[in-house]
Parts: sequence; C-alpha cells; structure tokens
Amino acid sequence: MTEEIGVGMVGHAFMGAVHSHAWRSVHRFFDVPLTPRLAVLGGRDPVRTKDAATKYGWAAVETDWRALVARDDVGLVDICTPGDTHAEIALAALAAGKHVLCEKPLANTVAEAEAMAAAAEEAAGRGVRSMVAFNYRRVPAIALARKLVEEGRIGEVRHVRAVYLQDWLSDPSSPMTWRMRKEKAGSGALGDLGAHIVDAAQFVTGDLITGVSATTETFVRSRPDGDGFADVTVDDAAVFLARFSSGALGTFEATRYALGRKNSMRLEVNGTRGSLAFDFESMNELSVFSADDGSAAGFRRILVTEADHPYVGAWWPPGHLLGYEHTFTHEAADFLTAIGGGVDPAPSFTDGLRVQRVLAAVEESAGQQSTWTMIGDPR
Amino acid sequence: MTEEIGVGMVGHAFMGAVHSHAWRSVHRFFDVPLTPRLAVLGGRDPVRTKDAATKYGWAAVETDWRALVARDDVGLVDICTPGDTHAEIALAALAAGKHVLCEKPLANTVAEAEAMAAAAEEAAGRGVRSMVAFNYRRVPAIALARKLVEEGRIGEVRHVRAVYLQDWLSDPSSPMTWRMRKEKAGSGALGDLGAHIVDAAQFVTGDLITGVSATTETFVRSRPDGDGFADVTVDDAAVFLARFSSGALGTFEATRYALGRKNSMRLEVNGTRGSLAFDFESMNELSVFSADDGSAAGFRRILVTEADHPYVGAWWPPGHLLGYEHTFTHEAADFLTAIGGGVDPAPSFTDGLRVQRVLAAVEESAGQQSTWTMIGDPR
Amino acid sequence: MTEEIGVGMVGHAFMGAVHSHAWRSVHRFFDVPLTPRLAVLGGRDPVRTKDAATKYGWAAVETDWRALVARDDVGLVDICTPGDTHAEIALAALAAGKHVLCEKPLANTVAEAEAMAAAAEEAAGRGVRSMVAFNYRRVPAIALARKLVEEGRIGEVRHVRAVYLQDWLSDPSSPMTWRMRKEKAGSGALGDLGAHIVDAAQFVTGDLITGVSATTETFVRSRPDGDGFADVTVDDAAVFLARFSSGALGTFEATRYALGRKNSMRLEVNGTRGSLAFDFESMNELSVFSADDGSAAGFRRILVTEADHPYVGAWWPPGHLLGYEHTFTHEAADFLTAIGGGVDPAPSFTDGLRVQRVLAAVEESAGQQSTWTMIGDPR
Amino acid sequence: MTEEIGVGMVGHAFMGAVHSHAWRSVHRFFDVPLTPRLAVLGGRDPVRTKDAATKYGWAAVETDWRALVARDDVGLVDICTPGDTHAEIALAALAAGKHVLCEKPLANTVAEAEAMAAAAEEAAGRGVRSMVAFNYRRVPAIALARKLVEEGRIGEVRHVRAVYLQDWLSDPSSPMTWRMRKEKAGSGALGDLGAHIVDAAQFVTGDLITGVSATTETFVRSRPDGDGFADVTVDDAAVFLARFSSGALGTFEATRYALGRKNSMRLEVNGTRGSLAFDFESMNELSVFSADDGSAAGFRRILVTEADHPYVGAWWPPGHLLGYEHTFTHEAADFLTAIGGGVDPAPSFTDGLRVQRVLAAVEESAGQQSTWTMIGDPR
Ligand SMILES: NC(=O)C1=CN([C@@H]2O[C@H](COP(=O)(O)OP(=O)(O)OC[C@H]3O[C@@H](n4cnc5c(N)ncnc54)[C@H](O)[C@@H]3O)[C@@H](O)[C@H]2O)C=CC1
Ligand SMILES: NC(=O)C1=CN([C@@H]2O[C@H](COP(=O)(O)OP(=O)(O)OC[C@H]3O[C@@H](n4cnc5c(N)ncnc54)[C@H](O)[C@@H]3O)[C@@H](O)[C@H]2O)C=CC1
Ligand SMILES: NC(=O)C1=CN([C@@H]2O[C@H](COP(=O)(O)OP(=O)(O)OC[C@H]3O[C@@H](n4cnc5c(N)ncnc54)[C@H](O)[C@@H]3O)[C@@H](O)[C@H]2O)C=CC1
Ligand SMILES: NC(=O)C1=CN([C@@H]2O[C@H](COP(=O)(O)OP(=O)(O)OC[C@H]3O[C@@H](n4cnc5c(N)ncnc54)[C@H](O)[C@@H]3O)[C@@H](O)[C@H]2O)C=CC1
Repeated sequence: MTEEIGVGMVGHAFMGAVHSHAWRSVHRFFDVPLTPRLAVLGGRDPVRTKDAATKYGWAAVETDWRALVARDDVGLVDICTPGDTHAEIALAALAAGKHVLCEKPLANTVAEAEAMAAAAEEAAGRGVRSMVAFNYRRVPAIALARKLVEEGRIGEVRHVRAVYLQDWLSDPSSPMTWRMRKEKAGSGALGDLGAHIVDAAQFVTGDLITGVSATTETFVRSRPDGDGFADVTVDDAAVFLARFSSGALGTFEATRYALGRKNSMRLEVNGTRGSLAFDFESMNELSVFSADDGSAAGFRRILVTEADHPYVGAWWPPGHLLGYEHTFTHEAADFLTAIGGGVDPAPSFTDGLRVQRVLAAVEESAGQQSTWTMIGDPR
Repeated sequence: MTEEIGVGMVGHAFMGAVHSHAWRSVHRFFDVPLTPRLAVLGGRDPVRTKDAATKYGWAAVETDWRALVARDDVGLVDICTPGDTHAEIALAALAAGKHVLCEKPLANTVAEAEAMAAAAEEAAGRGVRSMVAFNYRRVPAIALARKLVEEGRIGEVRHVRAVYLQDWLSDPSSPMTWRMRKEKAGSGALGDLGAHIVDAAQFVTGDLITGVSATTETFVRSRPDGDGFADVTVDDAAVFLARFSSGALGTFEATRYALGRKNSMRLEVNGTRGSLAFDFESMNELSVFSADDGSAAGFRRILVTEADHPYVGAWWPPGHLLGYEHTFTHEAADFLTAIGGGVDPAPSFTDGLRVQRVLAAVEESAGQQSTWTMIGDPR
Repeated sequence: MTEEIGVGMVGHAFMGAVHSHAWRSVHRFFDVPLTPRLAVLGGRDPVRTKDAATKYGWAAVETDWRALVARDDVGLVDICTPGDTHAEIALAALAAGKHVLCEKPLANTVAEAEAMAAAAEEAAGRGVRSMVAFNYRRVPAIALARKLVEEGRIGEVRHVRAVYLQDWLSDPSSPMTWRMRKEKAGSGALGDLGAHIVDAAQFVTGDLITGVSATTETFVRSRPDGDGFADVTVDDAAVFLARFSSGALGTFEATRYALGRKNSMRLEVNGTRGSLAFDFESMNELSVFSADDGSAAGFRRILVTEADHPYVGAWWPPGHLLGYEHTFTHEAADFLTAIGGGVDPAPSFTDGLRVQRVLAAVEESAGQQSTWTMIGDPR
Repeated sequence: MTEEIGVGMVGHAFMGAVHSHAWRSVHRFFDVPLTPRLAVLGGRDPVRTKDAATKYGWAAVETDWRALVARDDVGLVDICTPGDTHAEIALAALAAGKHVLCEKPLANTVAEAEAMAAAAEEAAGRGVRSMVAFNYRRVPAIALARKLVEEGRIGEVRHVRAVYLQDWLSDPSSPMTWRMRKEKAGSGALGDLGAHIVDAAQFVTGDLITGVSATTETFVRSRPDGDGFADVTVDDAAVFLARFSSGALGTFEATRYALGRKNSMRLEVNGTRGSLAFDFESMNELSVFSADDGSAAGFRRILVTEADHPYVGAWWPPGHLLGYEHTFTHEAADFLTAIGGGVDPAPSFTDGLRVQRVLAAVEESAGQQSTWTMIGDPR
C-alpha cells in the first residue's frame, strides 16, 4: 500500500455516499500513488453525521466544515454540499493548503467561480491541487469519445447535440428541495444537468462554446413544502443553441420533465469524417460512425469494456459492465494520481468556470428574448 | 373499380417516381371512391418526359405545365417540381377547377403560401380540393402518435424534440443542385427537412408554434457545378428553439451534414402522463412511455404493423414492414377519399402556410442575432 | 418497354396480393429484359377470383389451374397456393414449357420435391426456368450478408443461430386454417417458418446442413372450425440443432407462439473474423462485427439503403426504408432477368429440395427421441 | 454496525477480486444483520496471496485452505477456486460448522454435487447455511423477471430461449488455462456459461428441465501453453434443446466463439400472456411484452433502476446504472441476511445439483448422437 492521504468530506447524502464508495474502493482497483484514508466526515447535524460516518466508514466527524478543513489529519477536502457553499469551503481549504475536489457546478455564480479559479491557480503554485467533479468525463465511453476526436477519427466537428433528460419533477406533487431554490442551487435543471452536458461537449470536442441563444421554463411554480407550499425559484428546463469556436453548431437541453427518461444524458457529435453518439442510459456503449468504412459503414455499437479502453483495465473482463459509481472511482484515481505526480488534474476550477460562464450566458440570453449572447472570455 | 379520375403530374424525378407508384397502387390496396388514371405527365424536356412516362406508366405527356393543367382528361394536378414553381402551377390548377396535391414546402415565401391558401379556400367553396404533401403524417407510427396524443395518453405536452438529420452534403465535393439555390428552393435544409419536422410536430401535438429563436449555417459555401463552381445560397443546417401555444418547449434541427444519419427524422414528445419517440430510420416503430404502467413502465417499442394501426389494415400481417413509398400511397388514398367524399383533406394549404410562417420566422430570427421572433398569426 | 411475358398466377390471397404487386411494379423500378403482363389469375371460386382479378389488375381468370397452365397467353406460371398443390401444378407447367415460380416450401414431401427438382432440371435443358420463392434472400440486408460472407469478411463460420418467431397462434381461440392441417400444409411452423431460416442460413453461409437433432410441439391441439372444433395435425413449434458441412454448429427455432414477436426472423452468424446479425423486424438493418476494427470494434448497424447495396439502387435515396413486398419485387426482377438472360435462377427447385430434406430430417429426428439424423445427400 | 462475521475466502484472482469487493461493500449499502470482516485470504503461493490480501483488504492469509477452514476467526468460507476443489473445500467447511458460499458450477461431477447437497442439507439442520454463487439471479432485471413470472404476468411459459455468448477463445493463439482442462474445470463453455443460463432459466420460470438433446464442439483442439502446446480437453461450445416439466420448450447455447459478443447472456421467455427478454450486455434493462396492452402493446424497455425494483433501493436514483459487481454485493447481502435470519438461502446446493444434472445430461446426450436424455430426478 502506498502512502496515505487523509480525506475530509463535507456532505453525506447522495454525493456523499458515492464519494465515500470511491475513496474506499479506488486503491483496490487502481495503482494510485496515495491511499485515501476516510478521515473525517463533515455535516451539520451531529447524529445524522455520526450515523453516516458509521455507515460509510469514516473515522471521525465534524459538524463545522471549518473545523474539518483545519484538521491536521485532512490533506484533501472533498466538497459534496449544495452549490451555495462550494466557494466558501473551497477557498478556505485551498488557503489551508488542502487539495480540493469540488462537486459541480463549481459555484452558483460566475463571480464565485472566478474567485475559485484564481485561488486554485495560486494554490497550484504551492503544489496544492484542485479539481471539479464532472464525473461524466470518467465514463469510459465518454473518455473514449474524447480520444477518438483527439485522434482525428471524426474529423472537424460540425454538429453537437446534447440533452440531459430526467423526469423526477414531472409529478407536481413531488416536494420542494434545495435543488429548486435559487439561493441554494444557483439554477435548476440548467446548473444541475446542463452543466454536465456543457462540460462533456467541451471536453469531447476539445473546444469551447463562444455564444448561446436560450430560453428556460418553470413548469411547476410551487411545490409542497412541509405543511404548505413553497415557490420554485429556478428553471425546470433550459434549452439553448450554441456555437463553438470552431464554428460548430450545438443544441442543448436540460430538463427534469421528460417522462420515461431517467438519466438520459446524450451526446451526439457529427464531424467531417465520422460521428459519435452516447446515451448514459446505456453508459457502457459508444456508437461510432466512420465514413471510411464505405458501403459497410454503420454506427458501431462499441461495448466500452475492453482492457484497452479508458479506465476499463482496472475492472473486469470484456462485457462485464460498469455502473454509475465507477465514474467517481475513476475521478478519485485521477485526482490521487495528479496529486501524487505533482501535476494539475482536469477538469480544473478554470474548466468549471468555463462551464459557469456558459450557464450565465444562457440565463442572460433567456432574460433578453433569447438574443445571442457571447461568452465573456471563453478561455 | 370505382369511377376514374385523370391525374396530371408535373415533375418526374424523385417525387415523380414515388407519386407515380402511389397513383398506380393506391386502389390495389385501399377502397378509394375514385380510381386514379395516370393520364398526363408534365416535364420540360420532351425526350426525358416521354421516357419517364413509359417507365412510370403515364398515358400522355406535356412539356408545358399550362397545357397539362388545361386538359380535359386531367381532374387532379399533382405538383412534383421545385418550390419556385408551386404557387404558379397550383393557382392555375385551382382556377381551372382541378384538385391539387402540392409537394412541400408549400411555397418559397410566405406571400406565395398566403396566396395559395386563399385560393385553396376559395376553390373549396367550388368543391375543388387541395392538399400539401407532408407525407410523414402518413407514416403509420406518426399517425398512431397523433392518435395517442388526441386520446390524452401522454397528457399535456411539455417538451418537443425534433431533428431531421441527413448526411448527403457532408462531402464538399458533392455537386451543386437546385436544392442549394435560394431562387429555386427558397431555403436549404430548413425548407427541405425542417418543414417536415415543423409540420409533424404541429400535427402530432395538435398545437401550433408561436415563436422561435434560431440560427443557421452554410458549412460549404461553394460546390462543383459543371466545369466550375457555384455559390451555395441556402442554409446547410438550421437549429431553433420554439414555443407552442400550450407553453410547451421545442428544439428543432435540420441538417444535411450529420454523418451516418441517412434519413433520421426523429420526434420526441414528453407530456404530463407519458412520452413518445420516433425515428424514421426505424419507421415501423413507435416508442411510447406511459406513467400509468407503474414499476413495470418503460418505453414500449410498438411495431406499428397491426391491422388496427392507422393505414396498416390495407397491407400485410403483423411484423411485415412497410417502407418509404407507402406513405405516399396513404397520402393518395386520403386525398382521393376526401375528393370522393366532398370534404377538405388535411394537411391543407393553410397547414402548409403555417409551416411556411415558422420557416420565415426562423430565417428572420437567424438574421437578428437569434432574437425571439413571434409567428405572425399562427392559425 | 421490353418484350412482354404473360403471367398466370394461381392463388389470390396473401401471396397472391404480394406477387400481383410485384408483377405490376417490377419493370417500373428495374431494367428487366421482359415486361410482365398480368394475363390470367387462377382460383377456384369464380366470383372471388374475378373480384381479386379486378382488384389486383389481372386481365382474365380461370377456375381450373390446368386451363390456366394450358393457355397460350401464359408464359410464366406463378404458384401461390398451399403446399399440397405445388408439385402437381409445377410439374404440369414445366411439362407445358412454362417458366415456374413456386412458393415455398417447395412441396409437402421430399418425394414431391425430388420429382419437382428432377423436372426442373430436365426443363432447364429446354430453356424453361424455375425458381422457388424464398423471398428472404431478396431482403437487401440478407443479400448483403451473403456478399460479406462470400468476400471472406467474417472468415470461416463457426456458429449459426436462426429463429423465426411469430405469435398469431398464441391465442387458442384463433380459428383453424389450412396451415394447421398436415394434408394441406405438410407441416406447421416447421415448413412455414423453418423453411425460410433453413434456406437463409444455407444461402448466407454458402453451406449445407448435414444433420439435425430436433423436437417439435403442438401447444394447442384443437381449434375452432366453423361451428365446432378441428384437430391441429401439424407442429406449432419446432426446435433443432444442426451441423453444416464446414463443421459449423447451428440452432434453429420456428414458432407461432412467441408473444410480441410479430415476424422476427433472426439470423446470427459468427465466424473466425467477424459476425453478422439480422432481424426482419428491422429488415433494413444488418449488424456486422469485424474483429479487424480492433479496439474501436463493435457491431455496426448498417442501414442497408445505400445505392451500392443489393437491389437498393432501384429505389430511393439512403435512409428511405424498404418494406416487406419489396423482396417479392426483387424476386420477380431476378426471375425475369434469368429468363431473359437464358440462365438458371436461384434458389432453384434443387435448393428447395435441400430445404425439404432438412425439414424431413427434423421430423424424423423429432419422432426418434431427437436422435441425430443425417440429411440424405445434402447436395 | 451489526455483529461481525469473519470471512475466509479461498482463491484471489477474478472471482476473488469481485467477492472481496462485495464483502467490503455490502454493509455500506444494505442493512445486513451481520457485518463481514475480511478475515483470511487463502491461496497457494505465499507471496501472491499476501499481495492480494493487501490489495483487496484481507487481514490475514493462509496457503493451505484446510488451515483457513479451521480458523476460529472464520465463520463463513467463500470458495473462489476452480471447480475441482469445490467439493472438498465445501465439505470440510460445512463439517467444521462454517457457512459456505461456493462459486458455480457447484462441482465438476454430479456425484460431487450430490455429496455437497446432502452435506448442505445435513448442515442446515445444525444452522449452517450454504449457497451456490449463481450471481445472475441477483441482476435486478433478472430478479424482476422472476417476480413478473411469479405474479403470472406472462401466463404459462411456452418457450425459453437462452444463450450465453462470449468470444475470448475465438482467437486460436489465446493461451491454455485451467478452464480448458477437463480435470480442473469439469467442462468448458458448458459448465462455465451453460450453468448460468440453466440456472437462470430454471429460476425465472420457477420450473425444472426434465430432458435435453445436445451436441458440443471443440473448435480449437490445442493451444499455446508455456513453450509448447497443450490439448484442450473440454467443449468450446455446447448447444441443446430442453423440455421443462410444464411442457415448455427450451433452446440453449453456450460458446466462447461468438465474435463480438462479449458477455451476451440472453434469456427470452414467451408465455400465454406475455414475454420477457434480457441481455446482460444491457444488464440494466428488461424487455417485457404484455398482451394486455392491446393495440399499444410492444416490448417495454424497463430500465430496472427504480427504487421499487429488486435490490435497487440500496443504490442510486433512477437511471443511474448498476454494473457487474453489484450482483455479487447483492449475493453477499442475501447470504448474510439468510444467515442472520436463520433461514436457508437460495440458490441452495440442491439448486446447484439440479444444474449439474442438466449439464451431465447434456454431455451424455452429446455422446449418444444427441438422443433425448432425461434428467435423473430433476427435483
Ligand atoms: N457529479 C454529479 O453527477 C452530481 C453532482 N451533484 C452535486 O453534488 C452536490 C451535492 O449534491 P447532493 O449530494 O445530490 O445533495 P444532497 O441533498 O443529497 O446532499 C447534500 C449534503 O450536503 C449537506 N450540507 C448542506 N449544507 C451544508 C453545510 N452548510 N455544511 C455542511 N453540510 C451541508 C447536507 O446535509 C447533505 O448531506 C451539489 O453541488 C450537486 O450539484 C449532485 C448529484 C450528482
Ligand atoms: N415529401 C417529401 O418527403 C419530399 C418532397 N420533395 C419535394 O418535392 C418537390 C420535387 O422534389 P424532387 O422530386 O426531389 O426534385 P427532383 O429534382 O428530383 O425533380 C424535380 C422535377 O421537376 C421538374 N421540373 C423542374 N422545373 C420544372 C418546370 N418549370 N416545369 C416542369 N417541370 C419542372 C424536373 O425536370 C424534375 O423532373 C420539391 O418541392 C421538394 O421539396 C422532395 C423530396 C422528398
Ligand atoms: N414467401 C413467403 O414469405 C410466404 C410464402 N407463403 C406460401 O405461399 C403459399 C400460399 O400461401 P398464402 O398465400 O399465405 O395462403 P392463402 O391461404 O392466403 O392463399 C391461398 C390461395 O390459394 C388458393 N387455392 C387453394 N387451393 C387451390 C387450388 N387447388 N387451386 C387453386 N387455388 C387454390 C386459395 O383460394 C387462396 O387464394 C403457401 O405455399 C405458403 O407456404 C405464404 C406466406 C408467406
Ligand atoms: N459467478 C460467475 O459469474 C463466475 C464464476 N466463476 C467461478 O469461480 C471460480 C473461480 O474462477 P475464477 O476466479 O474466474 O478463476 P481464476 O483463475 O481467476 O482464479 C482461481 C483462483 O483459485 C486459486 N486456486 C486454484 N487452485 C487452488 C487451490 N487448490 N487452493 C487454493 N487456491 C487455489 C488460484 O490461485 C486463483 O487465485 C470457478 O469455479 C468459476 O467457475 C468464474 C467467473 C465468473
């Protein structure tokens, strides 16, 4: 076993459970230069936090994240809380010299994201690493897609088609949560789901969005909350057109109202030599079309489970599928490898900022009759 | 056999071949009140027109469409020529008291389409019928989709997702044709492919688009033409966001550059009770999700080949697929049935005009930085 | 238009309707050396035969097939009747010097099939052609599969997996027809559906089955018939293992009780270099796996609608699907081309006999505790 | 955390890695009455076993499984070694009063399996539990399939179609391993893959196979082994027909030569009211056809990721897929739950014996010209 690094994780619900699994499992499958120790779990309620620590295997708990950040046995801070807390925790952790893994979207505003990206850059100078948790980059099929684009297998990109469809809000009696409050979540489907497809599209194409035209909608404006009702203050769905710096055209849609689509994060890319298509509901598959195949051409359903596919060598023989949480284990492996190797991991906080700028432009355009809105400094 | 009606068809290339097949076949499968006689084929070149008449089974030829329209043995004029000629031929035919089937898009401009819709309405008063050839309404799966929406099976519509993807222009050496000249075709992928998905979306939802935000692109601006090159003066691709009068959100894309997608006209609709999905590349299938199915819910792949599915009773036993040209045979059956029954068929020229207005709004928005553009009088 | 050949067709129900369509349409799409004339339709009941002739476009009728065969205006006899009549009609027609297209299975017994194959061979010496109507060979995807195997694209064949699944008898109240009477149909699902997959497997692999082990079942032994009930005297389902002369292993299944499978004729072939998969319910697609594709390998879903795919050039642009009856139009084109060219078409009556021998071996094995049963002279 | 139970696992390669993961993870997701402690790892080579123990998190090692079985800190023995060792280890462990989880196939011969089933039954009287590791029963989609059959949703079963297709031996230069030696593995694809589909078919239908007709093949009879070559002494592929006690017909195929199929364990069941279809390569999906759906019937692609689907509640929100190793975590949860609850888990050693008898009958039939072979006492 390699040298240990103490992890302090803030938040212990959905992402907390998945990240815990990743920290417990990563060194069992990947040769990582640092072995994570589940040192401290941060929460607010002492009882619930203690219970979660027991369940997920954390050695200690803190009910104030500042205490967690300050601890000597914590070398890496993992932020699994709602977006309104990301900036504050991340800035404090970086300042304290802790490596930071921060859930997406990076922040609730561009201003926060800018501050975080600047702090991350400064910290990198001190050898302190940071990464934003766009886990879909770690789906082997998406990593393979990136590789194929990089190798020129689809030529120059002309079209990007990205949707992220869920349906859990389709029922109007589904209750209020922090995800529907602007002050907590920043935005709705846009920041939650849209952030993923913006990052994935930029990652796979290796290109940046330069401008958008958008509209958003809130289908159900008030939801059950305790004994009464509360106003939904975020979008339920966001749709937008986009341009990439290459000139490629994009269409994007994020919604929580697409009945029957449970987690359908789809990406389609058409280039001058070939095309790619992916749907997370079949996450172990990548469809690839190559014009070179001539009259025997057709979309190839690549089962991305071969040992030479990204990340797959660590797991099972071909055809033995991976699941959702594997993407987080891959994320942990990449982050530990970067920390151990003394290099900056991707996606960086700057990548997170780039996504944030697109989200902001979407909201701006939606508020201005969909007028084309340029992304301020897309780099 | 029922009473005959003489058909005069102008244009004898792609659509000419398909329509000929429909007129030859319709009464062999459907109980139509009028039996079509392939009376006159209209073209410009006498030799090529004569050859086509022989090949497709037409009794006579005319090289001036005005002569064709004027003939006594022609009771129905079928317009299979490029868009720049639709208005002129249709207006003349209606004036001459001939029923008119006109290929889509109805016209090259809203003004033309308005004139045609007005003339059609006036002619209807005289018992003269007209129809625009949005054949995709006659795909059994799409007709079934409409039926399910009408019956309330998916509830109120929240999302429409429509793309029409082809790839035949992806190769820059593919030569110039009339389809890439604005004066002939009106627009490019927009009018050619976009018109179909606008009509299909409006048909299936039973609703109209009220506004759009759009952008268009011409990827290859000049193409081989004879010994030299010619400028492409239409869009290669068009993408737009849309609102329906119900408030539903739509995204649309039409392109001839989606490598590997040959004729992928896809429509997805999400409602408050269920969802629908269709792809013309699997045209005999409709996917339907019903929230009522509870924990055994999932998209049902309905093979739309049962005797009680729209149009299918006329054909083969279940599982014996239909193809592209069947949609035109269904179109012919519906038109003859309407003529024989003395009722107005759908889609009417007014329906064609509604599509035209959306196309015009798309171009307008694209020319104004994608600013939201209302459809002038969507009815 | 080329020289005419008068067609006399016996039987005017399901196959009669499809074949009529083929004879009416073939020269509209294919450059055939002979143009079919729908000369005489044969049936038993004068009224129903006359009605069918009007509906399908036949010039004359006969109520005795012997009279039809004897007519001077008939140069080609097309047999669309149940299996018990095939031998008698075909032998008479060949003797009379008429080209013969005979529906499958070739006959109800090996003895009949042997007589027919012998007669066909003798007639060929006189320039009289014969063909058995295994129309699935004319599905473009299956013809492409054959081509790929022939080119060595999948290497040597190791596995064949073929099923033909329907469900129309699943309901026990579905009434009796000739298809469930041994004296009419010869066998049940075996001869009706099994014959197709045996022929298709032998065609695509270019190899012959040498032995089988089988079992059959009749799930519903009595069915409504008029006022009473009648005994089902054929199999409802047949399953068998097979060996090809190459050593390849095969599994076969034919059933009318696979609920939800409407016409699922599937063929999968695995070779030393690649694999093929086909399902008639997606008849415009062929899935091809090529080990040469390395780490980007995957089953390619080839949409078999390109101009250079078998038969497709005669039809529409890519992505514009073909349907069931196209296979019969292709069959007619191939037969006319062979007649015009003075060559023997395939599948020959000998090919039909080869299938018949496999069917007979299946029944023999099923009657002998599934003991392996060699095919008598598989050539 | 609940009371601990010390696990001693023998074997630390493929299954060893997966089982280790299950023992480490099960209590993090499931409320199990016993918390597994990774007490002792058994292997033969001290260095490799120690390394594996470190990698997978085991507290101690033993290089003689007898020592492992004898240890006081081991309450549960998990057998992850080749089939030739299963009986000996299991019998010793049961005798020592240890609960036993044994990998499949239960044994290499019926005689061994009988001894094991008898010992398991005897041990159960003493409160010692045993289970055979047919993990595919723990795929949520397969567990759901069983539930639907049990509820009568597909009626009486008429057809079962099961294949397990892999391709890793397709390349003749792939080297020799114990899996190709009869004395180690018992049989080849038959016991390795066939065992799974026999168990799954019996599990899902709730019925037993009563007889089979079979044939087997070894395509590549000699393989690279060290510096030379070694003989392959097992089957490469096995195909067989089967009958269930209900009268249902089955076809089965197991092969390691189906190029392009990586882990395609497929099961299709047709009943009198509906049908089911499953393919492990899309393991999160179950296709269900219900005749009750009338004209809107079609195979429903159920994404088996809802909280009320079997096992899924322990994991992620809908649409967040599970992978291969989850089935082992479910297996561990079920076993611990049975042990804690003092009840016998399924599949029992007797279930393993039932599978073994089918495998033996397959080999017997294959050796006797495929003659139908009854399963000795299928209960
Ligand atoms: N990468 C991905 O695919 C996903 C990312 N996320 C992101 O992860 C983050 C967390 O989301 P979920 O885990 O789904 O939410 P959740 O609601 O399941 O959990 C949030 C956790 O944060 C804790 N928390 C909230 N405020 C806190 C505070 N001030 N101090 C300490 N703890 C606090 C809560 O007690 C809870 O444990 C969000 O940024 C979200 O956008 C969420 C789901 C998927
Ligand atoms: N419903 C559908 O899915 C489709 C509709 N169309 C529409 O059908 C129309 C025709 O398109 P295609 O057949 O594909 O084009 P095409 O280029 O294959 O054929 C056009 C025909 O019109 C003839 N023509 C052109 N100008 C003429 C004139 N002034 N007088 C007489 N004949 C003239 C040409 O000689 C040629 O025969 C267009 O409006 C097009 O948008 C086209 C393809 C598919
Ligand atoms: N290639 C293919 O995919 C298919 C082939 N077939 C084959 O085609 C043949 C006919 O089947 P279907 O058309 O489906 O049956 P059907 O029951 O629909 O039609 C049979 C026709 O034969 C006529 N007929 C019966 N006995 C006759 C006699 N002695 N003289 C004159 N006419 C007689 C009947 O009146 C009826 O018109 C069979 O051999 C069948 O196996 C059937 C369906 C599909
Ligand atoms: N449930 C499932 O899906 C699967 C089950 N299996 C079964 O699991 C068992 C093991 O297979 P794999 O792990 O794939 O094989 P493997 O070859 O990967 O591992 C076998 C392990 O057993 C050890 N071993 C062999 N003989 C031993 C002995 N006498 N004493 C102690 N250790 C010994 C080896 O050192 C090695 O660690 C087999 O029975 C196999 O059929 C295998 C793969 C999948």
